[in-house]
Amino acid sequence: MRILVVGASGTIGKRVAQALEPKHEIVRAGRNGADVSVDITSPESITEMYEKTGAVDAVINASGGANFKAVPDLTPELNEKGIESKLKGQVNLVLLGQGYVNDGGSFTLTTGIMMDDPIPLGASAAMANGGVKAFVKAAAIEIPRGIRINCVSPNVVQESWEKLGDFFAGFNPVPADRVARAYVKSVEGAQTGQNYEVY
Amino acid sequence: MRILVVGASGTIGKRVAQALEPKHEIVRAGRNGADVSVDITSPESITEMYEKTGAVDAVINASGGANFKAVPDLTPELNEKGIESKLKGQVNLVLLGQGYVNDGGSFTLTTGIMMDDPIPLGASAAMANGGVKAFVKAAAIEIPRGIRINCVSPNVVQESWEKLGDFFAGFNPVPADRVARAYVKSVEGAQTGQNYEVY
Repeated sequence: MRILVVGASGTIGKRVAQALEPKHEIVRAGRNGADVSVDITSPESITEMYEKTGAVDAVINASGGANFKAVPDLTPELNEKGIESKLKGQVNLVLLGQGYVNDGGSFTLTTGIMMDDPIPLGASAAMANGGVKAFVKAAAIEIPRGIRINCVSPNVVQESWEKLGDFFAGFNPVPADRVARAYVKSVEGAQTGQNYEVY
Repeated sequence: MRILVVGASGTIGKRVAQALEPKHEIVRAGRNGADVSVDITSPESITEMYEKTGAVDAVINASGGANFKAVPDLTPELNEKGIESKLKGQVNLVLLGQGYVNDGGSFTLTTGIMMDDPIPLGASAAMANGGVKAFVKAAAIEIPRGIRINCVSPNVVQESWEKLGDFFAGFNPVPADRVARAYVKSVEGAQTGQNYEVY
């Protein structure tokens, strides 16, 4: 398959690309993507990316951010990053990309454990994750031409523990390679509408 | 208690206000609100509303919309209504309103069954519902001064069945009065971080 990985240089995206590379052609995208650049907060940039890549069999997104702020300090303005990037960025990769995915292809987006197991400062990211999960479940019943759509909800990964561990007190971090397997399941498997929890 | 009900003239909001009225002081808000006007898609309008109402013990939102479109026809532009109204409108009622809610007060937002039991054309609304549900769960752990926050996820209601039944094939509509009870539970009870499913 020809697989577009957005966020291919990130901690998870790198492992996902490596896991798929032996059997597939990988197109690496990102803000400074090895093969093609994209800013997922810009619908124009997303469309330009798809025009450059042309048809693909699978789109994986492992990018998207949100501000980490306590609710008393979270303003509508600070909440916008999660809205524009982690939520709309991912949803727009599907809305604008569905015409570029071959029959029977797939989309795989990324949510995250804090929507199920909340952490301080995580309300904006949780909001975005929850929106993506519900969109995926609903879009799966009517996305055309046998295209499937899933998301992966990773726990914090061991590779980020030194940097992020203080935010995830008491969490049991998982190896990024284990998270990558869920993306492989989404791409090479046959399920749709799923949110694969790697907790 | 002094309770602000946003969307108080809608099918559900009306029943919620009626259910609470015997024991509480109700302030009715909405686009043409009986007591105060608000456009929840505008942060400025939300702040003006709170400046007019002053301190309240509970905020209930039963308003917010989204476009109903099949995924192949759903554009980023059409998805904006769900983002701006049903998602950000509700989240901003909390972010901008937390300073106006008395100690130990509560917020109650509205999600909906289609995030759990998807219907055709419902992907944008489902996305917004899922975002609100996850925000509520995460915000509950750090919203200050003992303020609680929940949401209610209604099935389609019997009162809307004639108009909406074709979109909810095979669903078992519930009476709006039964939905209203969940809002009463949220306001008069003691739970937080919940999504009350009235299915």
